[in-house]
Amino acid sequence: MQPVRGPLDSEPQTVPVPKSCASLAEMKLPGQEELDVYSAQENVPTGELDSGPGSGPSPDGSPDTGVPKDPLLFIQLNELLGWPQALEWRETGRWVLFEEKLEMGGGRWSAPHVPTLALPSLQKLRSLLVEGLVLLDCPAQSLLELVEQVTRVESLSPELRGQLQSLLLQRPQHLIQTTSTRPCWGSARPRQSSRDEEAPLKEQRLNSLRQKLPPGAEAGAVLAGELGFLAQPLGAFVRLRDPVVLGPITEVPLPSRFFCLLLGPPTLGRSYHEMGRAMAVLLSDPQFQWSVRRACNLYDLLAALDAFLEEVTVLPPGRWDPTARIPPPKCLPSQHKRLPSQMQEVKGPSARRGSPAEDRHGQPPQAPSPELQRMGRLFGGLVQDVRRKAPWYPSDFLDALHPQCFSAVLYIYLATITNAITFGGLLGEATDGAQGVLESFLGTAVAGAAFCLMAGQPLTILSSTGPVLVFERLLFSFSSLIFIYDAVGKMLSLTRAYPIQRPGSPAYGCFCQYPDPGGNESQWTRTKPKDTDDLLSTDLGLVNASLLPPPECVRQGGHPRGPGCQTVPDIAFFSLLLFLASFLFAMAFKQVKTSRFFPSAVRKVLSDFSSVLAILLGCGLDAFLGLATPKLTVPREFKPTLPGRDWLVSPFGTNPWWLSVAAALPALLLSILIFMDQQITAVILNRAEYRLRKGAGFHLDLFCVALLMLLTSALGLPWYVSATVISLAHMDSLRRESRACALGEPPSFLGIREQRLTGLVVFILTGISIFLAPILKFIPMPVLYGIFLYMGVAAISSIQFTKRAQLLLMPAKHQPDLLLLRHVPLSRVHLFTAIQLACLGLLWIIKSTPAAIIFPIMLLGLVGVRKALEWVFSPQELLWLDELMPEKERSTPEKGLEPEYSFSGSDSEDSELMYQPKAPEINISVN
Amino acid sequence: MQPVRGPLDSEPQTVPVPKSCASLAEMKLPGQEELDVYSAQENVPTGELDSGPGSGPSPDGSPDTGVPKDPLLFIQLNELLGWPQALEWRETGRWVLFEEKLEMGGGRWSAPHVPTLALPSLQKLRSLLVEGLVLLDCPAQSLLELVEQVTRVESLSPELRGQLQSLLLQRPQHLIQTTSTRPCWGSARPRQSSRDEEAPLKEQRLNSLRQKLPPGAEAGAVLAGELGFLAQPLGAFVRLRDPVVLGPITEVPLPSRFFCLLLGPPTLGRSYHEMGRAMAVLLSDPQFQWSVRRACNLYDLLAALDAFLEEVTVLPPGRWDPTARIPPPKCLPSQHKRLPSQMQEVKGPSARRGSPAEDRHGQPPQAPSPELQRMGRLFGGLVQDVRRKAPWYPSDFLDALHPQCFSAVLYIYLATITNAITFGGLLGEATDGAQGVLESFLGTAVAGAAFCLMAGQPLTILSSTGPVLVFERLLFSFSSLIFIYDAVGKMLSLTRAYPIQRPGSPAYGCFCQYPDPGGNESQWTRTKPKDTDDLLSTDLGLVNASLLPPPECVRQGGHPRGPGCQTVPDIAFFSLLLFLASFLFAMAFKQVKTSRFFPSAVRKVLSDFSSVLAILLGCGLDAFLGLATPKLTVPREFKPTLPGRDWLVSPFGTNPWWLSVAAALPALLLSILIFMDQQITAVILNRAEYRLRKGAGFHLDLFCVALLMLLTSALGLPWYVSATVISLAHMDSLRRESRACALGEPPSFLGIREQRLTGLVVFILTGISIFLAPILKFIPMPVLYGIFLYMGVAAISSIQFTKRAQLLLMPAKHQPDLLLLRHVPLSRVHLFTAIQLACLGLLWIIKSTPAAIIFPIMLLGLVGVRKALEWVFSPQELLWLDELMPEKERSTPEKGLEPEYSFSGSDSEDSELMYQPKAPEINISVN
Repeated sequence: MQPVRGPLDSEPQTVPVPKSCASLAEMKLPGQEELDVYSAQENVPTGELDSGPGSGPSPDGSPDTGVPKDPLLFIQLNELLGWPQALEWRETGRWVLFEEKLEMGGGRWSAPHVPTLALPSLQKLRSLLVEGLVLLDCPAQSLLELVEQVTRVESLSPELRGQLQSLLLQRPQHLIQTTSTRPCWGSARPRQSSRDEEAPLKEQRLNSLRQKLPPGAEAGAVLAGELGFLAQPLGAFVRLRDPVVLGPITEVPLPSRFFCLLLGPPTLGRSYHEMGRAMAVLLSDPQFQWSVRRACNLYDLLAALDAFLEEVTVLPPGRWDPTARIPPPKCLPSQHKRLPSQMQEVKGPSARRGSPAEDRHGQPPQAPSPELQRMGRLFGGLVQDVRRKAPWYPSDFLDALHPQCFSAVLYIYLATITNAITFGGLLGEATDGAQGVLESFLGTAVAGAAFCLMAGQPLTILSSTGPVLVFERLLFSFSSLIFIYDAVGKMLSLTRAYPIQRPGSPAYGCFCQYPDPGGNESQWTRTKPKDTDDLLSTDLGLVNASLLPPPECVRQGGHPRGPGCQTVPDIAFFSLLLFLASFLFAMAFKQVKTSRFFPSAVRKVLSDFSSVLAILLGCGLDAFLGLATPKLTVPREFKPTLPGRDWLVSPFGTNPWWLSVAAALPALLLSILIFMDQQITAVILNRAEYRLRKGAGFHLDLFCVALLMLLTSALGLPWYVSATVISLAHMDSLRRESRACALGEPPSFLGIREQRLTGLVVFILTGISIFLAPILKFIPMPVLYGIFLYMGVAAISSIQFTKRAQLLLMPAKHQPDLLLLRHVPLSRVHLFTAIQLACLGLLWIIKSTPAAIIFPIMLLGLVGVRKALEWVFSPQELLWLDELMPEKERSTPEKGLEPEYSFSGSDSEDSELMYQPKAPEINISVN
Repeated sequence: MQPVRGPLDSEPQTVPVPKSCASLAEMKLPGQEELDVYSAQENVPTGELDSGPGSGPSPDGSPDTGVPKDPLLFIQLNELLGWPQALEWRETGRWVLFEEKLEMGGGRWSAPHVPTLALPSLQKLRSLLVEGLVLLDCPAQSLLELVEQVTRVESLSPELRGQLQSLLLQRPQHLIQTTSTRPCWGSARPRQSSRDEEAPLKEQRLNSLRQKLPPGAEAGAVLAGELGFLAQPLGAFVRLRDPVVLGPITEVPLPSRFFCLLLGPPTLGRSYHEMGRAMAVLLSDPQFQWSVRRACNLYDLLAALDAFLEEVTVLPPGRWDPTARIPPPKCLPSQHKRLPSQMQEVKGPSARRGSPAEDRHGQPPQAPSPELQRMGRLFGGLVQDVRRKAPWYPSDFLDALHPQCFSAVLYIYLATITNAITFGGLLGEATDGAQGVLESFLGTAVAGAAFCLMAGQPLTILSSTGPVLVFERLLFSFSSLIFIYDAVGKMLSLTRAYPIQRPGSPAYGCFCQYPDPGGNESQWTRTKPKDTDDLLSTDLGLVNASLLPPPECVRQGGHPRGPGCQTVPDIAFFSLLLFLASFLFAMAFKQVKTSRFFPSAVRKVLSDFSSVLAILLGCGLDAFLGLATPKLTVPREFKPTLPGRDWLVSPFGTNPWWLSVAAALPALLLSILIFMDQQITAVILNRAEYRLRKGAGFHLDLFCVALLMLLTSALGLPWYVSATVISLAHMDSLRRESRACALGEPPSFLGIREQRLTGLVVFILTGISIFLAPILKFIPMPVLYGIFLYMGVAAISSIQFTKRAQLLLMPAKHQPDLLLLRHVPLSRVHLFTAIQLACLGLLWIIKSTPAAIIFPIMLLGLVGVRKALEWVFSPQELLWLDELMPEKERSTPEKGLEPEYSFSGSDSEDSELMYQPKAPEINISVN
């Protein structure tokens, strides 16, 4: 499993390799990347261990080829507090990517935030460094040696030096969060100075933070404070030649590489605290760190500081509260530009695991995928596909060993079975009318011919040119709309099946009549004066009738008579409630992921199983009330649904022979439609945003579809419909995300659990559904309709088209800061949206009328519409409107966890971020 | 209406007076403050003109006393683009409070955002100023004169000078948003240079931005660009002695005070653009502006720049994308500290309109309100109250002329009438059991005695000491919980009144029996074999019976018989749907205010009328389906509800005489309870956060309550219950907010529409409800229950107690950055919350049992509990937990409009913001 490496990878460069990142995913700590270990380790059910720390190859390149890279730096600020009475060192801040500060009163660490500095503290730090001691590659092997080196300053009298040394050797107080929930204050015996101080403390070893830092991480300690007996400031910056654990100075027993001492006489303001923070922030900057690791003298150090100052962002004082804590942004700027050029060379064309799909990240989206490039020989693409896919085959099953896949199977199975039973799906419905005629051998013939054509030359025109990529979105929204329409429509049809009883409606009476007339008048007279409650089983006069409820009546051999016998009350509204409840539950459970409640493991489970949980809750509610809601019923026998027909369809059956020949034309159209639908879905699912690693198989898929078409046409089964929405829901239910760590890193999208097992199991389950009927009969249909609504709403709300349609309702000044609005005048945006809406309306009309048979031609017509748009819009505008450039903003309300920074550049300095790949835009997860 | 002014107010200081602001409300543009004009101007129905610009007295102090203050500065950056082919000036940025940038491609202004600068651009600007021309108090009277002055530089040859002058006189291009929706590019004839350039353009005059700037505003123009024929940089900074309209240079024809020219040869990067931005940001800084208006020479200017640099906030490059646009924060830091000391003196004790309530803003919340200070003489407080309130009396009615009041009347009327009919409210329910006994004269006697006590010495202990203020929240949450509990409980009781028909339930049969038995056997036989549809009106054998629905049966003189006759199907679930729908509609409409859709006027109306609209929608839905849901029914006659009793209650009625005497004790308890409830509600409503201007009337209120108690006890009517939740809902429905302007200022809370009319009208309407029955009968009860749920949920979700209770469910690392968590250890917070929960549970148990009569004693007991807590918690902890310090964070999801900056300081440098007043914490508006 060794990745194929580019030639430059083997250069012995000792530099970090930050990728040209689009999100924090690529700013990850070294060694903390998602590992592609195909082991049961992934089955840890807590979800906390999506990636094991620090083992296995890193996708960023070097460790496994023996090229060392700069280790991660954990920086800690120890402050001298309590002057002059009770001097003690206390850790008041720590940095890895972001700053965490000690909440002294609350006894806890703050949430990680972007560090902000005051400019003067940086300037003061600079002058202190100039005046102070700078030891680069200091050979000290212990804290004691280091302290001796640092205090060897002329300005100190031997007495003061001793005092200072013992102070520096003092054990600092750390707020250590051990694995138990209760934080404890480390160093209960604060002022017991002896040589055994050097040994790491028990609290240090137990610190749970240590597990979050990758192996090989180094520490940097900054000690700052005010000391009354000092006459003048004392600054020292030390880079240790060999990193060494400096006793209890840092809260984690990591070997320290840097040591910085900033002491001075008490002054106004907390300048030493701020200078210490400035030093820590400097050290946490990747470029400064890079420079200072290689600095030869003070001037290199100062140059690095000045380079840092050149790049800082300045916020004016009157418009910004300097004490505001800024939450970590979702996406960081690329460090690419900032790092020296030789660092970037290292990256090279690091093709990982030999998968060309990986490389697509950096490519502009317009370029056709390598999987789609024309091979130039018959079946060339197909052979290539098989070659590409074959090495992944074992992992396609091993990768499925994760609880998430279990949830995905349940979810997609229920969606598939309901879809199969109740809906036709987009293409299914469009072809319903034609199915009777086309169940003929000619369909298969055409499919075969089409396959032969396409295996040699895949639908390059369809899937890799710009124009169609645009309307892929339109078709997608069309599919989603049909999903929503069908879900709501089926729900409303239930209210027709179970009508609501209005006060005037004549649906009240129902009595039970027994078959044998008998008895006489006196029977009635006898029972009449009694209590009305007795009427239930009383003979009504001469007629053997009672008011038994219909089922009871039938059991006793009677016939229910009357208009009210068929009516089942309360079902309509209860179904509506179930429908809404399952929809809202599914939405809510999905959103739990971004809420603050519950531990992240619980939230992950709730979110992963959102649909299944919503279905279970709906079933529970239904079972609790015990009403006769319509349930999911599956066939109980394995046989053709059309009675009296064989499994195999005769090509020239009961129809006249010429009808079968004439069916060739509609068969051709349908083949095109099905192939287009399949290919468009495949293109959407293989977008670079999804970070698929195993490569696409367009030709292979097409081959399978063609075979299936032959088979299903011969057997008269429904054709394969790729069902874009369900496919995307399937994909989305298999998203892998990095675990969020305590250092301020938001969880980032890592890819999809690419495997074959879930799909296989879903269809096996679908096949054996006839045996599952006793279980499935507990699932009310309205609950499933609610889930379908959820899927449709989630799909439609994820695309740019929806955002643009919303713009139509927003006044200009309240519109979100979408990148496309910065570059395309609003009126043009609206025009484009209106044209798309018109196309959508046209498609809808065609679909709803008997003209549905020409639907595939209309789809091809859309390509023409898109070409025509090039006369109306400039290429620049279309580039933005086609959304080939991903939008930075996610329109998801993040529930206050993170503000929506729109990381997008100014007009003429557009941030490079927006040209970079990012997590999927189309996602089924409604956030 | 001239305010009484402090002695310092009349000092002829010409300085701006930024208040020590808590929110942007106080950072408002001068002249744009909410005006206290009692005129029909407030009736502008669009809601856009909540405050008319620039007339009337300013609460910040000076204009009405003739002390000029620094005018607002509008800063514009014109850039020289198109070098070398087609040179033109184009406005690319503008600043008032925040930065707006021209989206060149989109042809629109960006959303206002916090400007960010690069440090080098500030340094380059500084050196350009050092080398360049600084003209302070330049006497130029026109653009031409100014240009001549500015270009009088030695380094320029006369030829170049002429070229430069004509370039500077060129008309710049502005993107002008006129009042029509379509923006137009100003200056269609760009290069027609003549003297009439000096006249303001038509577009300039039509610019809608002008209306948003207060009168007296000045402009500052920054011109920056690269010019090939210049050999060296040309910098000029001009402060005009008399501000003058510089022709078409600025997009609004404002007199310009500052003019800055930054030109130079083309260089790498866009340094002149960035320097221009830096200059503009500097000028928009209040302190820099203050200094530069008073600068005498270059060095003053540089000192101001350096002072600016001292205070900037620096964001490290690796952790922050410098091109990110930061939305305007909700709250800005106070400029108090930053401005020179002589500026602050001006503010003084500016008691506005003589209302002491105004002054409470600055006071720590612990201090008792002046209204509550003990007067030391009998009825002193009462007299003081009357004196305080009397001058406001006319305005109490005039202030009500606003559509918002109309909405408030409808909302509160419906809430009151429903509450009166269906709920008892907190105290009403608690006293239900005792009411029979206490309808006695002794109750009134005790009330009178209590009144006498309290008029002299108001409940100082109750309303102004810390301990009770804490539990005011607890009681409030108790009231809210009861509200929610009642709403849900009443809703569920509907499902018992209209039972759901399960499949097995014997509630099916119902037939109609006619009173006169007749007919014979043959009748049945004759009709039996026919269609079952004919059965509807068929005689059943000898019995004259049919299957007519019950109402029809009764109309035809028959009797419905059978267990199914009473059942009305579908009502239960439909009621539940209505309940949920009205709750969700009310929530959604309230949230429309913070959404991006629709113009702000529409949003304001939707939000103000949220409850009324939700009720109307519920009624519409109900009417559409026409089901027999339970409706709101009011009495149709004006009479005592207890039959056979007189209006006046006899003190010694049918009860034995000793019972009336013994009733004195419960009567005393009840009086205390009612007075406490009323006073606590009054204290909550008079919190400084609400910015009430007209002063409190604690004594007067108490007096009225006492009178009412006498009256209602004598008449045997229900006692006055202040109904905290409804009172708060009333208050919240009358919130005044500033209009959001285009300059990035969020709308801020201005106060409450304090008036008497809404309350009066509500109770008049309640009185004449017996005539409104024909209208009210269309309102279904479930809809009203839904609104009650909304009110309860809104109330409970607004208090710190709820936030703390939520913390119990959150893992520490996901907890929001609440200030209290920075200062109090989590375990202590949980302990406090647990104690409060226990108290709440205890109260609930007492309320639910017959012990409800001792409820008032328990309330007093809470004060003891709070006192006891002082042994458990430190005063510092209690200070935070009592929420006397307002929290900065609002837990409201802002729908992505604004990120949640937690403007709260670092641990030891806590921002001063958190000690300042802010918009109400308790608010009924669920955001």
